[in-house]
Amino acid sequence: MKATSLWTLAGTALLGSLTVSPAQSNPEAAAPAPAVHVPSYSADGKLEMPANYREWVYLSTGFDMSYSPRAQPGHHMFDNVFVEPSAYQAFKKTGAWPNNTMFVLEARGAIDKGSINKDGNYQSTELMGVEVHLKDTGRFAGGWAFFAFDDGKAATMIPTAASCYSCHAEHAAVDTTFVQFYPTLLPIAAAKGTLSAGYKHDLGAAK
Amino acid sequence: MKATSLWTLAGTALLGSLTVSPAQSNPEAAAPAPAVHVPSYSADGKLEMPANYREWVYLSTGFDMSYSPRAQPGHHMFDNVFVEPSAYQAFKKTGAWPNNTMFVLEARGAIDKGSINKDGNYQSTELMGVEVHLKDTGRFAGGWAFFAFDDGKAATMIPTAASCYSCHAEHAAVDTTFVQFYPTLLPIAAAKGTLSAGYKHDLGAAK
Repeated sequence: MKATSLWTLAGTALLGSLTVSPAQSNPEAAAPAPAVHVPSYSADGKLEMPANYREWVYLSTGFDMSYSPRAQPGHHMFDNVFVEPSAYQAFKKTGAWPNNTMFVLEARGAIDKGSINKDGNYQSTELMGVEVHLKDTGRFAGGWAFFAFDDGKAATMIPTAASCYSCHAEHAAVDTTFVQFYPTLLPIAAAKGTLSAGYKHDLGAAK
Repeated sequence: MKATSLWTLAGTALLGSLTVSPAQSNPEAAAPAPAVHVPSYSADGKLEMPANYREWVYLSTGFDMSYSPRAQPGHHMFDNVFVEPSAYQAFKKTGAWPNNTMFVLEARGAIDKGSINKDGNYQSTELMGVEVHLKDTGRFAGGWAFFAFDDGKAATMIPTAASCYSCHAEHAAVDTTFVQFYPTLLPIAAAKGTLSAGYKHDLGAAK
């Protein structure tokens, strides 16, 4: 039994790669059905920000991710992605997203030196943005819509001419969602055969 | 309505800081009580790895974090932290951790170029380690214990002489847990008055 620990973050303790059984393939028998969050709209048709998305299922985090080459921005940023729990459970079974699937992307500032941290970055209490990607085939042309929240207020749909729509449609691994960046979901989609033609084309072109 | 979007990760769309209402302060009324994960031990006293920790409540992610200065390691790593849902709900109410609180820290590889990502890093399907920090005042001297899992097999407690114990005891913000690195929990602990003397001492020394 080695006495080094990830929690000590000593830097080199875990350079080796361990094979660990996928956690998502063996849910506990006693887990209850998840609460379903149904999208809520204001009287004037704006989407309400989901209040408790931090208690949804976490998918992944990026650090300074960018889809276009750029100069050093002079700061660092994390982005965390969450998905509504009942949609996650459906995806585990089918590799596909049901109607009302809602993703939340939050951006947070990155801190380097603070408390006992001496290297790398941790996440700040500073929330720099919250966006939603929502599936509703009866409501949105193309099936999905994006919303950006400002100060927690209900948000108008981002117009479909925005580049997020075309980029997600062309490159996202499953049904306009970037499952290729969600490490526990990508193996499920591969196993269920739900990977998009665009994603497979990109994979082939990269070889 | 601006048509730029975090989801396009265009690099500069969100340099500004938005103030967003804290999600955790307004849980939905219909949310059911969370499933309680009770720690499970093998016949020889080892801790079983919690199977579905990826469905627990996400706390935060670090990127290349290290508690000691180090040379560039030549690779990047993410660490994601999850906490058992009923413990999280208790913390929201009290700023303190009940018995059987369990944290999971998972380390994942970081990928830079892949799919359409051109800058920064996203998380790999390569799981590099899973560790648990568990509170059981009846079972462990000091109240908490660390476990490192290898290949998903039940784990022996890391001996209390390991540096993780002394470092967490001296510097962690709440009851040996590094709440200072969990952005949605730190404001709760501050409001509930549960920040540790060691953390407050470190804060004062840094001024």
